[in-house]
Amino acid sequence: MGKVKHTTIAPKEDKTAPQPHKRNKKSESKQNRAVRPLKIIPLGGLCEIGKNMTALEYGNDLIIIDCGMAFPEESMPGVDCVIQDFTYIRENQNKLRGIVLTHGHEDHIGGLPFFCSEFKCPIYGGKLTVELVRHKLCENGINQKGIDLQAFKNGDRVKLGSSFDIEFVRVNHSIADSYAVSVKTPVGTVVHSGDFKVDYTPINGKPIDLQRFGQIGKEGVLLFMCESTNIEIEGNSPSERHVGEAFQRLFKDAPGRIIVATFSSHVHRMQQIITAAETYNRHVCLSGRSMLNVFKVANSLGYIEMNSDTLIDISDIDNYDDNKIVILTTGSQAEPMSALSRMAYASHKAVGIKQGDTVIISADPIPGNEKPIYRVINELYRQGATVIYHSLDDVHVSGHAYRNEIKLLHSLLKPRYVIPVHGEYRMLYLHKKLAESLGTPGENIFVMNNGDVLELTPDSATIGEPVPAAAVLIDGKGSADINSRILSDRRHLGEDGVVSIGLVIDERRGKLLSYPVVNSIGFVFEDEKYGIHEEIAERVVSTLPKSGDIEAAVNKNSYKEQIRGLCFNKTRKRPLILFNVSFVSK
Amino acid sequence: MGKVKHTTIAPKEDKTAPQPHKRNKKSESKQNRAVRPLKIIPLGGLCEIGKNMTALEYGNDLIIIDCGMAFPEESMPGVDCVIQDFTYIRENQNKLRGIVLTHGHEDHIGGLPFFCSEFKCPIYGGKLTVELVRHKLCENGINQKGIDLQAFKNGDRVKLGSSFDIEFVRVNHSIADSYAVSVKTPVGTVVHSGDFKVDYTPINGKPIDLQRFGQIGKEGVLLFMCESTNIEIEGNSPSERHVGEAFQRLFKDAPGRIIVATFSSHVHRMQQIITAAETYNRHVCLSGRSMLNVFKVANSLGYIEMNSDTLIDISDIDNYDDNKIVILTTGSQAEPMSALSRMAYASHKAVGIKQGDTVIISADPIPGNEKPIYRVINELYRQGATVIYHSLDDVHVSGHAYRNEIKLLHSLLKPRYVIPVHGEYRMLYLHKKLAESLGTPGENIFVMNNGDVLELTPDSATIGEPVPAAAVLIDGKGSADINSRILSDRRHLGEDGVVSIGLVIDERRGKLLSYPVVNSIGFVFEDEKYGIHEEIAERVVSTLPKSGDIEAAVNKNSYKEQIRGLCFNKTRKRPLILFNVSFVSK
Repeated sequence: MGKVKHTTIAPKEDKTAPQPHKRNKKSESKQNRAVRPLKIIPLGGLCEIGKNMTALEYGNDLIIIDCGMAFPEESMPGVDCVIQDFTYIRENQNKLRGIVLTHGHEDHIGGLPFFCSEFKCPIYGGKLTVELVRHKLCENGINQKGIDLQAFKNGDRVKLGSSFDIEFVRVNHSIADSYAVSVKTPVGTVVHSGDFKVDYTPINGKPIDLQRFGQIGKEGVLLFMCESTNIEIEGNSPSERHVGEAFQRLFKDAPGRIIVATFSSHVHRMQQIITAAETYNRHVCLSGRSMLNVFKVANSLGYIEMNSDTLIDISDIDNYDDNKIVILTTGSQAEPMSALSRMAYASHKAVGIKQGDTVIISADPIPGNEKPIYRVINELYRQGATVIYHSLDDVHVSGHAYRNEIKLLHSLLKPRYVIPVHGEYRMLYLHKKLAESLGTPGENIFVMNNGDVLELTPDSATIGEPVPAAAVLIDGKGSADINSRILSDRRHLGEDGVVSIGLVIDERRGKLLSYPVVNSIGFVFEDEKYGIHEEIAERVVSTLPKSGDIEAAVNKNSYKEQIRGLCFNKTRKRPLILFNVSFVSK
Repeated sequence: MGKVKHTTIAPKEDKTAPQPHKRNKKSESKQNRAVRPLKIIPLGGLCEIGKNMTALEYGNDLIIIDCGMAFPEESMPGVDCVIQDFTYIRENQNKLRGIVLTHGHEDHIGGLPFFCSEFKCPIYGGKLTVELVRHKLCENGINQKGIDLQAFKNGDRVKLGSSFDIEFVRVNHSIADSYAVSVKTPVGTVVHSGDFKVDYTPINGKPIDLQRFGQIGKEGVLLFMCESTNIEIEGNSPSERHVGEAFQRLFKDAPGRIIVATFSSHVHRMQQIITAAETYNRHVCLSGRSMLNVFKVANSLGYIEMNSDTLIDISDIDNYDDNKIVILTTGSQAEPMSALSRMAYASHKAVGIKQGDTVIISADPIPGNEKPIYRVINELYRQGATVIYHSLDDVHVSGHAYRNEIKLLHSLLKPRYVIPVHGEYRMLYLHKKLAESLGTPGENIFVMNNGDVLELTPDSATIGEPVPAAAVLIDGKGSADINSRILSDRRHLGEDGVVSIGLVIDERRGKLLSYPVVNSIGFVFEDEKYGIHEEIAERVVSTLPKSGDIEAAVNKNSYKEQIRGLCFNKTRKRPLILFNVSFVSK
């Protein structure tokens, strides 16, 4: 079923016996008396938020749940994005039977362009998810030949390989077509929650399928992998409808134009904004590339209810009274090039903020984005807008379950084993404590790292040998692992700058042929440059070895450290030192 | 009274007439029929959080309220701190009569080492404030000769010059000895709130002096400058005592050692931790340089109540049972070298985190610090600690007034004019709206920028010509203004790295004498370096002008842009380009 391409890398023999990863003794002994184990291999999303990916392997079959990307940390300057290490997939690609996608957020599908440029296999997901993937692969120039994209809906099932029977179970989340995945395997049923919340009154009238969760639980669940995003928040998350009520109230009173920024993928939020606009006889226009894209996809799937004359083009807004306009825009996280940021900094082509505008930021800041978001809010106020944001009104609800909702799913499923997923270490740990409080024994709950392997039989769970799962940095056209020296170099350059020193050496006699040329960037302020460059050149002249391999000598760390010491004494900065040594035969 | 040092810079004549700053017409006409104006000159703290500083000038007298520093924004890599532009003070230093400090936080006193190395004048503040300043000046090697540090308490008054009569009015805040300042001037009374909250049940039994605020208000207030930090939060901030209750509860149940991280300057918080420790028969030890410093100062002032045997040295903790220990530490903001960070990353000399430890982070994340704080929490959990932080319990309350408290002060003072201070633009704006809702006419409320000048007479307020007030960056031993190119260079270096190219030119014939030497840092991953360096060298050889001033040619932006274009096409990165051109006479 899996269309394996690079078969040369993959093992060719049919391995009916368990894979040859070393296993600890306890596991060995279990092996002997039970069926072969099901391996659960999280490759991303554990001890982090982002790049979710989990492999399930049994005998000759391997399937993957989600393939997301992560945004670079501030400690990764210049990096475009972060994905998983595909080594284990590469080594086992002849077993690959398919990818199952829980929903269409970047941290669940964003790794697919990289994955699909190397591996070909069927991809399954909800209707919106599949369309977003199609668009993403197309945008990234990925040849979609041999990639079988299949749309599924609640209750749909598909058999992958001879080992896995997949069922999609509807959940609520901040994007349409979100599903949990129930996987029947020869050793028992594995349920992966995907990202979920329990919304009893969702916008599309389709709440999470709690009955089916109950039924699956009654039939017996071996393992529950459950998301942990909001494990720190007591109670239940408010319904998405709550935000709609705020929109109705705010739209009622807004004197002029209304500009709402939200996540472009949040189709239900989009719907509520459109509904509120229509209630107050306003037209809606869209701003921002991803907003236009998702709207087009969602509308084509029939997910948007809207009068035929509601939507107008952004270039036409000046033909309407201000109190007849709603602008639905990207930029709720103050992304530098987003439409809302461009409006705030007065560089948006079609929309200049003016007195009387009401801007609603219908999103919470993602941790780390607080400062840019507040800068955008400050600028919007400066331009004359009234700004409504999370601190001032209920213009956003989370798409992730709070503690009570997580407890509900655990209680419906009553799993034998639990792996908390989708969270930083503290969240996984708190999730473990929550599961314990519900009766799951602590030794049956596994707080794991990416690359850890859990081997399951119907009555045992043991941690096997880990597989490679370090983060892979995508940087321009290159990629490298997280420990690459380039990151520390860039952080250092960004703090203290660089000094480059040009030396010319007489090729035959090994002596300096001209005075060292010193330049720097980012090191000291313009007016200090000349003096310190002079001193560096003098120091080089006075300390350069009089004979031997000068190039090797200056490239030694100890020599560079000496120059750096001089810089530090003079300036309190420690720049990186770079020697350009040229050889001339005189 | 002011000890003016650099009198050469200051105007020497006694100017009884208003200063020669241009004024708009409205102001001119007011001038003619009223007394000369009082100038209010905010030099820092408006449209920003940090580096608070306000000058008041009347005739021949100038005083300053607060002299803080700000921490660099993420757009200022490598910068140590940010202070105010002192140009206006420099030009008017012969008028300088003194600095009045509202309290001892860095954003109110952190600029003093820079200020005091240039200007000498008396400095007034609460007892703790004055001691912290003394320590800070000493630490920074500032000669304190000629700096008259005077400690004041609630109700104390001092006359500065012939124009200003200062009174300290007690407020509550997250540091002991916090005061509002009431300044009687020839045109009316100016009240500056400092940082404040209204705590009816403070730890030291000394609530904000609301009676005196009422009395001052009844006597008439011309201008109220009021802080705006929590203007976005409805209601009243909880009492500091609230945190003490949480400590009592948490200390009661903690099985092993308790480690509490909080702001080192928060003497009342420190007291509550000590009190809770004594309730449960625990000893207290201190970790972190600033925690030790502040404790020493506060204790010497009699601000700490503690049994004589409670305090132990951190090196002695292993001599006590774990459940007899409380470690009070710095690092609540996950500062990289702080004691708590070192504990979390297992590099603290005296304290290794172990199973059974309870770590309480008694602080909210300052915006922008969320991610580092969560990383520290994750690491603490990994090391086996239970961690209590803002998301999980009430272990912190803000030291800044919520909206109701701000309304209370406005209502007690009933000022004619208002300047919202200490806040970003949106906060100042929301504060203006709040003041309007209390009856102050909008045209009497001034949302100002640093450097704006408000000229006040008893019955008029007009904005005059601004004075220099751009941020000054302190970077190693250098300083420069915020627009310095070094910042964009560093940001660029930190994202895309640098390529340096060494050229050797025949001095007489102006020709290349050797093949270009190319090096780079932070540009591409190690395995891609060789190929791209080769291509750059080839491109330089093929595009270098065959004659003329080669050095000038390669240093042109257009030439560098060409090399950068090559880099981008090959790698999708745009490094900075640096040429080292050496001349050799052959």
